[in-house]
Amino acid sequence: MKVALVVDIVRPEEKQIAKELDEKKISYDVINVNQVNLPLKKGLYDYQVAVIRTVSMYKALYAAAVLEAADVHTINSSYTIYTCGDKILAYSKLLKANVPIPYSIITMSPDTTLKAYEELGYPLVDKPPIGSWGRMVSLIRDVIEGKTIIEHREMLSNSQLKIHIVQEYVKNKGRDIRCLVLGNKLLGCYARKIPPNDWRANVALGGIPESIDVNKDLEKIALAAAKTVNGEFVSIDILEHENKGYIINEINDVPEFKGFMAATKINVPKELVEYIISNYLI
Amino acid sequence: MKVALVVDIVRPEEKQIAKELDEKKISYDVINVNQVNLPLKKGLYDYQVAVIRTVSMYKALYAAAVLEAADVHTINSSYTIYTCGDKILAYSKLLKANVPIPYSIITMSPDTTLKAYEELGYPLVDKPPIGSWGRMVSLIRDVIEGKTIIEHREMLSNSQLKIHIVQEYVKNKGRDIRCLVLGNKLLGCYARKIPPNDWRANVALGGIPESIDVNKDLEKIALAAAKTVNGEFVSIDILEHENKGYIINEINDVPEFKGFMAATKINVPKELVEYIISNYLI
Amino acid sequence: MKVALVVDIVRPEEKQIAKELDEKKISYDVINVNQVNLPLKKGLYDYQVAVIRTVSMYKALYAAAVLEAADVHTINSSYTIYTCGDKILAYSKLLKANVPIPYSIITMSPDTTLKAYEELGYPLVDKPPIGSWGRMVSLIRDVIEGKTIIEHREMLSNSQLKIHIVQEYVKNKGRDIRCLVLGNKLLGCYARKIPPNDWRANVALGGIPESIDVNKDLEKIALAAAKTVNGEFVSIDILEHENKGYIINEINDVPEFKGFMAATKINVPKELVEYIISNYLI
Amino acid sequence: MKVALVVDIVRPEEKQIAKELDEKKISYDVINVNQVNLPLKKGLYDYQVAVIRTVSMYKALYAAAVLEAADVHTINSSYTIYTCGDKILAYSKLLKANVPIPYSIITMSPDTTLKAYEELGYPLVDKPPIGSWGRMVSLIRDVIEGKTIIEHREMLSNSQLKIHIVQEYVKNKGRDIRCLVLGNKLLGCYARKIPPNDWRANVALGGIPESIDVNKDLEKIALAAAKTVNGEFVSIDILEHENKGYIINEINDVPEFKGFMAATKINVPKELVEYIISNYLI
Repeated sequence: MKVALVVDIVRPEEKQIAKELDEKKISYDVINVNQVNLPLKKGLYDYQVAVIRTVSMYKALYAAAVLEAADVHTINSSYTIYTCGDKILAYSKLLKANVPIPYSIITMSPDTTLKAYEELGYPLVDKPPIGSWGRMVSLIRDVIEGKTIIEHREMLSNSQLKIHIVQEYVKNKGRDIRCLVLGNKLLGCYARKIPPNDWRANVALGGIPESIDVNKDLEKIALAAAKTVNGEFVSIDILEHENKGYIINEINDVPEFKGFMAATKINVPKELVEYIISNYLI
Repeated sequence: MKVALVVDIVRPEEKQIAKELDEKKISYDVINVNQVNLPLKKGLYDYQVAVIRTVSMYKALYAAAVLEAADVHTINSSYTIYTCGDKILAYSKLLKANVPIPYSIITMSPDTTLKAYEELGYPLVDKPPIGSWGRMVSLIRDVIEGKTIIEHREMLSNSQLKIHIVQEYVKNKGRDIRCLVLGNKLLGCYARKIPPNDWRANVALGGIPESIDVNKDLEKIALAAAKTVNGEFVSIDILEHENKGYIINEINDVPEFKGFMAATKINVPKELVEYIISNYLI
Repeated sequence: MKVALVVDIVRPEEKQIAKELDEKKISYDVINVNQVNLPLKKGLYDYQVAVIRTVSMYKALYAAAVLEAADVHTINSSYTIYTCGDKILAYSKLLKANVPIPYSIITMSPDTTLKAYEELGYPLVDKPPIGSWGRMVSLIRDVIEGKTIIEHREMLSNSQLKIHIVQEYVKNKGRDIRCLVLGNKLLGCYARKIPPNDWRANVALGGIPESIDVNKDLEKIALAAAKTVNGEFVSIDILEHENKGYIINEINDVPEFKGFMAATKINVPKELVEYIISNYLI
Repeated sequence: MKVALVVDIVRPEEKQIAKELDEKKISYDVINVNQVNLPLKKGLYDYQVAVIRTVSMYKALYAAAVLEAADVHTINSSYTIYTCGDKILAYSKLLKANVPIPYSIITMSPDTTLKAYEELGYPLVDKPPIGSWGRMVSLIRDVIEGKTIIEHREMLSNSQLKIHIVQEYVKNKGRDIRCLVLGNKLLGCYARKIPPNDWRANVALGGIPESIDVNKDLEKIALAAAKTVNGEFVSIDILEHENKGYIINEINDVPEFKGFMAATKINVPKELVEYIISNYLI
């Protein structure tokens, strides 16, 4: 009975998970995918569970895929990682399951992107399907800003980044909400206040964590979102829409939880390891 | 009762499908994703079936995702498109389902890639997870060639292309086999002879189509491969391994069928349209 | 006595030059660098003059360099091409020669770029050192727009494009001026009106050509700018600064002249070919 | 009387130069271009001399250009930096000045590159115009290797890297020679032995420094090469061609000198600082 902790760059969060595994006397290997090759081979990976914690989305995806092929249970699954790692796929699954999302138009050429801007009206948000920490998520307030963004996006060599999610701008009361789901349970939620000189609340951009009260509606939408993407351990970014109420902005498949722990005082690594023990190691 | 034919660049194959729809008097729209935006919205797409035929993998994937979210049946599904569009995901699913594949090692850094080369031994094949028409699929015959490839791959800005599939080189009898599957039926198979001055059989690289006899083993593996990825209309690249017999090299989710039709005399657009009618339009 | 006309994509302007060479009965070869290799070898290129007309800046630069090495006179020289092709180099040469330019700060990291924005104040212009047709030239009106541009620029794989020219925004009276210089002579000038929904006057972006009167100051600055970069056949973009008067925005080393001819009625190919004959072929 | 030491990443070599300036009691500023902006403005930079030592070629180029515009003497000049930083420009200048170089063909499209391979014959070398430490310099031994390189190069987003220098392969006796020139004087030369499992001698790739005797021919070609590109402090990579004798492979405008000092026992920072004092500070 053994656990794999899959990493590339080891952050404090991964160290905390390792420490918790140590304390619970769980046998585990740290698999650093930058240092170890992953042969596609059955019988090679002697683990009940692998916790996927790489910073790189693709490294997470491929490590999960290789381990699943060898019949290891991964948290999260490759399905969850690629669905959440791609905002168009995530939104599509959520819409199909009737979980509310921001109104979004997918555009695939410069001309049609400009047309979508004009149809939707300014201000609006434009983001590429992939990318973390709010990177390249753009607030577009008029046609000049829009043309500038389209031109820059066209210069990127990755064709995936030339696809646009043109999205209604949700005035966000100066904060957004982030909830952490583990298994079928909501661990908790907190808010991130938007820092000065930005319009995005991402902690990486200076967003300031603060505690909030969790209510039934928040719990309901967070659990519904997690379930839609088969997320076993995911964080959910939630916006407060003036008409639609709570809507899902994003789901993170390798959830960061430093800000969460600061705001909620919930010991996430402990919860995670206890969850793994009771569900997979007994 | 209406069909959507989703395209970006219209090739002869898409024209043949449209012609066949005309002849069978099926009502359909051509949706060119370079000219039309795709709002994520239920009730907007009044189609029973969408045939996804874009050249761009990402445009195929996102068009399928948007249409599925609006409850349109897509051929192929977004699941099939992303799984087949990514060779690591496809190999993982095939391995898990015990469908034979080339022995492959997934590597995620320059150093470990070089180590995998040395472990596997030369000659070997190195390919990135994504890419069509054999592009960047490299035959590596010694460490000098290997270092050159690793250096070039590191220069690419798309981090996904810095992931390597280091793979046994299957001596391929001067040809590879390509089979076309529609629904649960094998439409047929043909071979592509490797052109002079290359080691790959892709038609885009000059591979010459030739007819072959289909046997039970070929049928079995092709149907198993298609089923594993939920492929409804897919082509399967098959190699003849000296010890393992038939193995799956690749599955294509927007199958080209010009070479197939030339070699087998099977009318693919007719088969496809009849399949759609009898399964979805009646 | 022979001329080389060096091209990659043949536009109407190159056809007009060829036609003029025909009419004047000048012997010439069209060298399409996409179809012909350029060995670095003396004695191989039997031309008095090569007119460099590729759309690609690098193809222009390298064709000129190879021909110069073989003692062919090129219009323009490789020195002029690389200096004008790189806005930082061009501005540096102009400043050194006391030819007025927009006040500009060169920044080489995201943090210092943001600092330069704050120092200069909004609105301002940010452009990368290379790029044609106004591409990626951005009007930045506040810190949010600025951060968005910096983030996008950081995603580009070409490290040269991560360098910023942070520049005062010159309110441009709804137009900019473009002058054409040949040898030591000013051929003429015209204005380009800024199209609706843009702030840039580039013809490629919809700028509308209109005729203007040439005055002594305009002639003086255009000739000074051309001379500074050794430009033999160049077009000069000029802005009207409210305090500084005329200032140089950009110099183009493979000048487009369609708009110029429409506005000025001057036959540029005829002037160019007569210039070549009288200076190099007699 | 003041010196600027321009850096981005501070390596031991830059620390040694700073230490030498300290010892000689020369007043100097370290300008880290990642931390400090460079306004294009006369009178702002109160230096006699700037020593340009950034790792990034473009940062070196632009820092030199800005400082030159403000009438600071830079070592090296922006002219030397861009000429040496671009192998096609360097080869062109050398050929024009009759300094021997490897026979090279410049190609600008995939098809013509393949044609150049066939004309030149294998083995050959293919390198892009820019890049340091031997990166992407490829030994091509047959058409398969050649096609692989062309395909990879086409995937790079920087169009400059799609230009090829197709070059005769100079069998290099297991080593290449590197000479250091300062002012009009040859400081010395050493050899770099090619490491096992590579064909390139770059120290960054494991090349082992060893001392050699300097002869008149070596001195002559090194000084001629430096003079051709106006190099004031440059290192010259020299190959021993079986027919042509010494030929110039590359010139480095921000010379690394760790290996040189180990092999020759010459104190480069001391020589450099004394050179600056006697030429510019007295």
